[in-house]
Amino acid sequence: MARTGRRPGQTQTKEDILAAARNQFAARGYGGATIRGIAAEAGVNPALVHHYFGSKDQVFVAALNLPFNPSALVETILDGPRERAGERVVRLFLGLWREPETRAPFLALLRSVATSPEVARQLRTFLETAVLTKMAAALDLPLLRLTAAASQMLGLAMVRYVLSAEPMASATDDEVVDLIGPVIQGYLTP
Amino acid sequence: MARTGRRPGQTQTKEDILAAARNQFAARGYGGATIRGIAAEAGVNPALVHHYFGSKDQVFVAALNLPFNPSALVETILDGPRERAGERVVRLFLGLWREPETRAPFLALLRSVATSPEVARQLRTFLETAVLTKMAAALDLPLLRLTAAASQMLGLAMVRYVLSAEPMASATDDEVVDLIGPVIQGYLTP
Repeated sequence: MARTGRRPGQTQTKEDILAAARNQFAARGYGGATIRGIAAEAGVNPALVHHYFGSKDQVFVAALNLPFNPSALVETILDGPRERAGERVVRLFLGLWREPETRAPFLALLRSVATSPEVARQLRTFLETAVLTKMAAALDLPLLRLTAAASQMLGLAMVRYVLSAEPMASATDDEVVDLIGPVIQGYLTP
Repeated sequence: MARTGRRPGQTQTKEDILAAARNQFAARGYGGATIRGIAAEAGVNPALVHHYFGSKDQVFVAALNLPFNPSALVETILDGPRERAGERVVRLFLGLWREPETRAPFLALLRSVATSPEVARQLRTFLETAVLTKMAAALDLPLLRLTAAASQMLGLAMVRYVLSAEPMASATDDEVVDLIGPVIQGYLTP
């Protein structure tokens, strides 16, 4: 049966794959789950999982509804003068949180991470193996510095968007960039 | 009836006051709750609430089981050379997270904040009115800088203790202080 092109069952097949992926990531964690195992559970060929979603980390992003493409972050850092990378990262982050379609799943993820050790474990392994380690290699930076930068961005999200503590919640993007940009820059510049 | 000294009902009375406080903070938020209202609900004299717990923010700290005395933070910053205040704050924070009796309620609080808008609202108002505003006045710093410093400490807690992302989770206190101390110092030094 041809699997390319629009056909009535395509949306259902994608949903089946994502449901299988959520099960597999929950059962085995990000590190233990495989494209092959996800495909088997969904009853499809592994090539179809690759066709629809790409690599394992892209399946993870889709399965957890992460509004976040790890490679975009590396591109943002590398695309432009390195001495202003901190500013670009903070602007990218604020932009993602401003859009309702990315903000809602981010919030859901923060809530799940805080309450579910299983989601925390999956996100941790994903961040470690698919995001931070790759960034550390691409940017030639110690991994500890990248986790520190991630901690500042995560804390900013908590204070500005979850706690909504003033005056951070109402600060303009420029004010936040002026304050947090140099900190991220410092982490990215040993 | 004399209310001072050890007596069989003292523990029960304290528990009644804390239960009333949790109700009042939940119903009215940190800003709206009063010592008078808490005392009325617990059926005791307001003076007894002051006697057992002190000020409204101390009742709040006790009611939410916060392992955290806001005034200790200001003292930590002021007690010693100002140019090493960032380092002292990070060391204080790491010490609080190392002790099981403070770590457990901190974790519980982070989980509640992420999932309960009501707890988030209470903690926000408490931080704004009882912690950050007082610190801003004592330290002569813009409030926005203090919320930024708070965001870094909160994010550090999330990455190191909730997500347990490596290598941050296993880094020594000295490594964390070397990396995060200067950031806090920067926020505290316009």
